[in-house]
Parts: sequence; structure tokens; C-alpha cells
Amino acid sequence: MLFGEITPPDGRVAAAARRRQDLLTKPQGALGRLEDLSVWVSSCQGHCPPQQFERARVVVFAGDHGVARHGVSAYPPEVTAQMVDNIEAGGAAINVLAGLAGATVRAVDVAVDRDAGGTDRVRRSSGNIAVEDAMTVAEAEAALALGRHIADEEVDSGADLLIAGDMGIGNTTAATVLVASLTGTEPVAAVGRGTGIDDAAWSRKTAAVRDAMYRSRALRSDPVALLAAAGGADLAAMAGFCAQAAVRRTPVLLDGLVVTAAALVAERLAPDARLWWQAGHRSPEPAHQIALNELGLTPIVDLGLRLGEGTGAAVALPIVRAAVATLSSMATFDDAGVSGPEQP
Amino acid sequence: MLFGEITPPDGRVAAAARRRQDLLTKPQGALGRLEDLSVWVSSCQGHCPPQQFERARVVVFAGDHGVARHGVSAYPPEVTAQMVDNIEAGGAAINVLAGLAGATVRAVDVAVDRDAGGTDRVRRSSGNIAVEDAMTVAEAEAALALGRHIADEEVDSGADLLIAGDMGIGNTTAATVLVASLTGTEPVAAVGRGTGIDDAAWSRKTAAVRDAMYRSRALRSDPVALLAAAGGADLAAMAGFCAQAAVRRTPVLLDGLVVTAAALVAERLAPDARLWWQAGHRSPEPAHQIALNELGLTPIVDLGLRLGEGTGAAVALPIVRAAVATLSSMATFDDAGVSGPEQP
Repeated sequence: MLFGEITPPDGRVAAAARRRQDLLTKPQGALGRLEDLSVWVSSCQGHCPPQQFERARVVVFAGDHGVARHGVSAYPPEVTAQMVDNIEAGGAAINVLAGLAGATVRAVDVAVDRDAGGTDRVRRSSGNIAVEDAMTVAEAEAALALGRHIADEEVDSGADLLIAGDMGIGNTTAATVLVASLTGTEPVAAVGRGTGIDDAAWSRKTAAVRDAMYRSRALRSDPVALLAAAGGADLAAMAGFCAQAAVRRTPVLLDGLVVTAAALVAERLAPDARLWWQAGHRSPEPAHQIALNELGLTPIVDLGLRLGEGTGAAVALPIVRAAVATLSSMATFDDAGVSGPEQP
Repeated sequence: MLFGEITPPDGRVAAAARRRQDLLTKPQGALGRLEDLSVWVSSCQGHCPPQQFERARVVVFAGDHGVARHGVSAYPPEVTAQMVDNIEAGGAAINVLAGLAGATVRAVDVAVDRDAGGTDRVRRSSGNIAVEDAMTVAEAEAALALGRHIADEEVDSGADLLIAGDMGIGNTTAATVLVASLTGTEPVAAVGRGTGIDDAAWSRKTAAVRDAMYRSRALRSDPVALLAAAGGADLAAMAGFCAQAAVRRTPVLLDGLVVTAAALVAERLAPDARLWWQAGHRSPEPAHQIALNELGLTPIVDLGLRLGEGTGAAVALPIVRAAVATLSSMATFDDAGVSGPEQP
């Protein structure tokens, strides 16, 4: 067993949070999804009213994919390393959005295709999944362990909310293979436009997804073997991170297709981990919606974002903060001397 | 003419903002709605990149409605005055949500049914629109002028983003009459559950809406007369506020049904004012969606909020801030040394 047991968020605290919502100066249920999110945060924290997040943390898992050299992306593979530098310099979208939402950002080079790899690196790029394995099973286990270790590090450093992000040219191809394989979806129904590819690139991407699914079809019930054959080291690290966050009772906001594909694998490795996750947003990638359905998660916002990096989750974070703030700071009917509803 | 001419936001600046979005380190269009919002803010400010809002302001327009004494709400009418006190004490949802979003809150007693009215008050409660006019035409004009004056005050004090909110037991009944009258919608298709009414109250509310529409059906092309016959003083003040904000070239985030109904009237009084507005959220009230369709606005979030006070707009404000921040603070491809898309 790769991960410890998942304890669900505290149902007794959830009930107390729901009761408190009904005492606040507003009609019952009038804050809609904010009420549900406030109850969820309370139950994750084991405490009502909940506390505002003090150390929200975004971890961007970066990795290259051999399949990117075969025309499945609008961008050349060297962009992965350039964007990791951009994130570390503070110039990427995730830096701006996390900063505004009160979160800090860490980038981890899991499998970037460059000479100077960090100490965390599992391998240099993942293989071209259309024709070869992404990595060995031992490497997949190492990548899962890396993600688990990073979640432990962050939680031990005081992180009270985690966001996983992705950066890697070609990573939506691998993510789509994972989602389509685990849900039995045909490639044409799952493949999206990624960074904005044209019809010819979409056809090449769909063929690559089909070939990778064919290569790995015996492995659908073995998530680690599936990651090795048709995933990627970055995706495996994200899966380990999402699963371990749940083991450590730390709430997670999922981002788009790539992170949600990794989360789907994590849920197979650590059943009920999803109880510790919310879907930050809905992207236009078809496989993202398929993965959300499979996980039973409803996105908080739907703004047409298709960038990755954790940006969709970062945009949703202020809404989760708003949910926490209403439950912890609004006056009750008694406090404010406001009359309740009339009895019919 | 009650309002000055509306000048559209600056199209040349919008084009420059769109070009700048395409230089930022992300695939073109990958920030979805955030890109559109950043372009809109730039064009409103007449400047690219846009500046972050420094003085976002919520004005809550409070008023009672005679129709509330006839079982159309789950709450007794005295809640309006109690909630105005709660907002002034900082305990309401809008205080918490605006505070988190970096906005301040002002409550204006336009027509609350209490002895101690402020100097702004147009009248004590509006009439029961099922059987009588809400107010005289002179009072409707005074309420419009009050809203116009408040917008001027706020803009002159430096407000760079305005949100109108509502507080008033019974106000969704009057708002529904305005929307249904102006769009030719049958009452049963427009009436919602407001604060959470049961079937019997919904039937009473629908009957009240039908009676008010019958009383005012000759007035559909005269917005001021319609406000007087079947609206309310608070709604008229909101309409004046939304229209004058546009005259003053100041962007507005609309809230739910009540504010959007007032905005629909404002658009009739000041054509193209809507170019200065965004819809903060979508509420479950059917008439809200009808009004949004008529105005051609797409809500930013859809979280099942049905509270009013400006809360839906306040929840959307961090997303508009995120849009501004990405356009103003992200690195360009040149800045960061990141390769652009490959040419096919």
C-alpha cells in the first residue's frame, strides 16, 4: 500500500457548520455554494467556525513529454523549461493569480528536458507514450513518492490549503490518455485543443492518445503500471501529492485537466481521497469534465480557462475564502436582533 | 432627458489591451473570460495596462414594499430596517464579502418603513403595487435623482468601481414586475422563490405580480411611469445610480435580480449604459436570467446565491481583480525569453 488510510472529513463538525449557517443573518441556503464550501472547510479543519487559510500553497509540477516532439502541441518542448524559469522569476499567470489570492508558489522539476535538473528530478523527460513507456514502474513509484514527500514537506511547514499545478508541453496528451483509459472513453470524445492546436494537430494528438491507450489497455486496473506505460513522471508526482494531502487531512483545490487526471489516478490508489478535494474550475478540455464526473466533483467557476499551472484553482481560491469568511464572521439573528422567518 | 449621453468605453484601448494579452506568457486566449474582463476594464479606464481598483464601493439601496404585508416573502417587513442596522454594524454578508474583496460598503435608506429615516429618504415604504402605485411620478423622479446624486458623490470621492446592492423585504416582487413588464414575460415564467418561500406564498407572489402588471401595462414604454406604478423608490434609486455610473465612465458590477431589474430600467433611460456594466453572478431567480438576456450580459459566477445586498457582485470582484492583475503584471514572451507558438 503506497498511501496511508484516508479518514473522511469530520461529519459531526460538518453538521455543526450547517446548523451555524442557518443562524446567520440571511435566508437559509441563500449563500448557495458558499454555504457548502464553508461546511466542507469546517469539516476538513475539524473546527466550526472555520479559520481563514493562512498558508495556501501552490506546487507546480513540471515535466516534459516525448510525445510533444510529434506535433501534438502548438508550442515547442523547450517552453517547459523556459516557463519553469518564468514561474521562478514571478512572471507567469500563476504567480500573479496566486499572489492576489494570498497563496505562494513553488515549482518542482519532476522531469524537465534540460541539462540542469534539480535534486527532485525523477528523469529527464518522460517517454513518447504513443510508441514507448513514459517511464519504468520503478520511476513511477519514485515519482509518486516524490509527490508524497512534497505534500508532507508542505503540510509539515504549515500549509493549510494545497493546490497542484502543471507545466509541461504535451502534458494534456498524457492526461487525456489516463482519463480515457480509466473511464473507458473513446479518444475522439476525450481529446481537446490543449494550448490551442489546429485540426491537423488535433488529429495527430488523437492518434497518439489512441496508440497510448492501445499500448496500455491491459493496465487499467493497475494505476502505477498505467502511469508508467502511458502517463508521465510529472503526472505521477501530482497523483502522489493529491493522495498524500488527503492522508494528511489537508484540503486541496484541483485545477484543470492535467491535475484532475492525476487526481483520478490518486483516487484509485487512495480511495476516498477525493473527499478532501474541491474542483476549482471547469476547463474546455472534454477529458476534464469526464474526470470531474468520475470523481463526483462540481467546479466552483467556469471561465473558459485552459492554461494549467494551477491558475483555475487560484481563481477559485478567493471564493473558498469568501465561504470561510461568511461562516466565521457574519452576525447571527440573535447577535444582530434581526427577526427570523415567519411561521406559515 | 434625465441622464447625460453615454460614451462607450474606449475601443482603441480595448484593441491595445487585446494585443497586449497576446504577448503575455500563455497560449492566446488561455485565460478565457479573464482576458475579456481585462480588456473591458482597460477600455473603461481608457488605459492599458489597466490599474487595479483602489476604491471599489458597494452602495446598498434599502426600501420597504407595501406588497410585503401580503404574504409574498418568508420574512416580516421589519427585517428591512433591522438588516440596514446590521449592515451599518458590519455583520451582514455584504460586509464580510466586500471586506474580503477590498471594497467598502454604504447603506442608503431610500424608503425604509421606520420612524427615523435619513435625509436621503424619498418616502416611507413604497405602496402595495398589487393594488396601488408604488409612488408618484414626482417621487420616482426624486428617487432617480437620489441614485444619480449618490453615483456622482461616489465617483467624485474617487470610486473606480461601483456595485449596487439591495435590501428590502418584498423587493423581488417589484423587481419581477419590472422585468416581466419590460420583456413581455408571463408572471409564472418570471416569479421565483425570493428568500425561500413555499408554494402558497409563491402563488400569492405570482398573483401580486400579475395584478401589478395589469395595473401598469399601458406604461411599458415610459420607464419613469412604470417605476412609479409598479416598481419602488429603492429600485428607482438603483436605476439612477447604474445609469449615472455609466455617464461618469465608471465600471459597475451588477448583482442579482433586484439590481439587474433596476439596470434594465436604467438602460431604457440611458441607452448603452450597459456597456459600462458586467453581470457579477447568476441567481436562481428566473427573472434575473430574463433581465440578463435582455441586457446581453453573461454572469461571471454561478454559485446559487440568492441573497442580494450586492453579495453576488462582491464574490465576482476578486475575479475581475484577477483579470486586471494578469494583464498588468504578467511577463511577456520577450521579457521572459519564452518561445512562442510554432508556425504550422
